[in-house]
Amino acid sequence: MVAVLSKLPGVGPRSAERIALHLVQSEERAVGALAEAIVDARKRIGECRICGSLTETQPCNFCNDARRDHAVICIVERAVDILSLEKAGVFRGTYHVLGGKISPLNGVEPEDLRFAQLEKRCDEAKVVELVIALPSDVEGDATSYYLNKVFTTRGIKVTRLAHGLPVGSGLEFADELTLSRALEGRREFS
Amino acid sequence: MVAVLSKLPGVGPRSAERIALHLVQSEERAVGALAEAIVDARKRIGECRICGSLTETQPCNFCNDARRDHAVICIVERAVDILSLEKAGVFRGTYHVLGGKISPLNGVEPEDLRFAQLEKRCDEAKVVELVIALPSDVEGDATSYYLNKVFTTRGIKVTRLAHGLPVGSGLEFADELTLSRALEGRREFS
Repeated sequence: MVAVLSKLPGVGPRSAERIALHLVQSEERAVGALAEAIVDARKRIGECRICGSLTETQPCNFCNDARRDHAVICIVERAVDILSLEKAGVFRGTYHVLGGKISPLNGVEPEDLRFAQLEKRCDEAKVVELVIALPSDVEGDATSYYLNKVFTTRGIKVTRLAHGLPVGSGLEFADELTLSRALEGRREFS
Repeated sequence: MVAVLSKLPGVGPRSAERIALHLVQSEERAVGALAEAIVDARKRIGECRICGSLTETQPCNFCNDARRDHAVICIVERAVDILSLEKAGVFRGTYHVLGGKISPLNGVEPEDLRFAQLEKRCDEAKVVELVIALPSDVEGDATSYYLNKVFTTRGIKVTRLAHGLPVGSGLEFADELTLSRALEGRREFS
């Protein structure tokens, strides 16, 4: 049990031992309920066939929500990124999970990601804007430029989340690259 | 000595004790040199009469540098903020240190800051743009809006450093306000 538990993210050998000891000393019924909940959730939750987010229904609640703007799609790397954006509560469009970033060195080509599904979505519905919310590392940048190249030729506006200073923080905590992007991206008051 | 040392920023009572013990056990000549260096630096370094940055010369090297763009002035709160921006090495204009933020609750009015000097600079030279690099807390925002109000009526473009995600980081580490600003400030690829 310890070996299996320590494979969970954030659980080291010591935590695994603690959890295991707790479980073998718990009531058998409670442990059974936990095991069942895990298996049950794994069975019920899958990828939305349209956007790739984690969902119990097909399509997911985002794709099925008529109040959301289906003409604006936010591109994220992983399904968990949707949670971050939803917590901020400012994005009213729909999402698309790529499932990774283009990385020729690791053998990840566009065909390995959910690009085909995205192109299909853009064919089937009138999409006005793709908002890229990929991380800004080398692979994220490469993927963003690829997306921009492919979709601007289709007449779709491709934008990217702004880089800059975190809100509420001063200059001294920002790294140099972020400061230079904040300066480049400076805006007039609206 | 411990009482005086522990007033320095970042030096608590324990560090003050350690430094004091180190000093009383050092060579007398070395301690004298340190004391002299401190007094000497304090004497030589003052505020630039134009921009308010720390300098040994009047005016400072920024104000005196013909290769810098004197039509673009970056407004910072404190002289140390200039160091952060200079480390990033992307800003080629000049600076202006306000010396604080407008804060009516603490009795800080525009007259208490280096606003008059800024207006004088804008009167004397052709200034095209003010780039505000104040922190984005309540007082920083109030000061920014005040600057914007005063200087846009003079036909000067007033901009502000972009808010958004730090470069290289993913969505999960950004707070909600920063994410919402990053989304608002999204830009097309250039």
